[in-house]
Amino acid sequence: MQAPIGTLYHATGTCAQAVHIALLEAGVPFELAWLDFETQQQRQPDYLKLNPKGRVPALVTPRGLLTEVPALLVYVAQAAPEAGLAPLDDAFELARLQSFTSYLASTVHVAHAHRRRGSRWADEPEAIAAMQRKVAQNMVDCFDYIEREWLAAGPWLLGERYSVGDPYLFTVGGWLEGDGVDVSRFPRLLSHRERMLARPAVQAALAARP
Amino acid sequence: MQAPIGTLYHATGTCAQAVHIALLEAGVPFELAWLDFETQQQRQPDYLKLNPKGRVPALVTPRGLLTEVPALLVYVAQAAPEAGLAPLDDAFELARLQSFTSYLASTVHVAHAHRRRGSRWADEPEAIAAMQRKVAQNMVDCFDYIEREWLAAGPWLLGERYSVGDPYLFTVGGWLEGDGVDVSRFPRLLSHRERMLARPAVQAALAARP
Repeated sequence: MQAPIGTLYHATGTCAQAVHIALLEAGVPFELAWLDFETQQQRQPDYLKLNPKGRVPALVTPRGLLTEVPALLVYVAQAAPEAGLAPLDDAFELARLQSFTSYLASTVHVAHAHRRRGSRWADEPEAIAAMQRKVAQNMVDCFDYIEREWLAAGPWLLGERYSVGDPYLFTVGGWLEGDGVDVSRFPRLLSHRERMLARPAVQAALAARP
Repeated sequence: MQAPIGTLYHATGTCAQAVHIALLEAGVPFELAWLDFETQQQRQPDYLKLNPKGRVPALVTPRGLLTEVPALLVYVAQAAPEAGLAPLDDAFELARLQSFTSYLASTVHVAHAHRRRGSRWADEPEAIAAMQRKVAQNMVDCFDYIEREWLAAGPWLLGERYSVGDPYLFTVGGWLEGDGVDVSRFPRLLSHRERMLARPAVQAALAARP
């Protein structure tokens, strides 16, 4: 039997869901370890010893720690090349995929994080409240761009080819309602969400519980 | 003669410098196009037609647009495999490299951006000022982590092997003084900076002017 690729540290409602789905799509064995963010388990010394960032996702592999969703997505795709989850044989298409995942990580996720993690960037409650007021509009701007520039072809992010970018889009797009955005503005995103929900790997990830 | 890989859109003082250095290290032909951020050239219709994000870097290739530093760095490394700028034959090491570049993009660059780009995340001048007050400490926290977890081995980010992660570290680390951080706290980073400044590609990138 194949040895597990590693242990994925996960927490409910986080971007680790994208990596979880990707692992299930890849069909590689892995262990799952849930952290409880309600009790700040990600800040406990035991976890900080594993992952000094105190965040998820983290993949603890036999060779060491890996973090950050864009890095993990390509790693998972490379672990199961037969699953075809990334255009590993086409540098331009791979870079397109990575342009997208990097944008989700460094712009869209960051826009979203100003709703509940504003204390990362300011101390004063008024400033944190000011950030929260801008989150919905920033998310609309991001997804207007995604809807227009990335989802016109479909059915998947890269067109006919399903890739590890799709679970990441599904995961971050799933935060829109909580951010106060009316998602009916994004019909292509909603179709993409429907297609994702029909996939067994997505259903299994959503059914998984700590 | 080899056809250019594309045109790199660059602006002084931005993270596009990392891609510029990487291209020079790779030794592939490319064109350079400077944008003047002082006059908001990145928001002009001509540029937005090329890159709707209105940011740099952007690499306009014969096959289309690529954006986001982490994506471009791997793309450049793949364009010149003989230069050995990324561990393309080792999925784990590549993921380590990408864990680092993704962290720079989504955490460190974002921490820095709250100094001059606070209006992305709040409208009120008081909130923007509150963000600015936290930038130096956030950058210290990021580089404490980098100094401890990534620069202990050396001489380069990945150890003995120079990679496209090094110009990115050099570029983002170069913002510390402007962010009000006393860099004497980071001796390993300063050694890394010295080693970078000795490289002809880095000298050529720093000498380039619009």
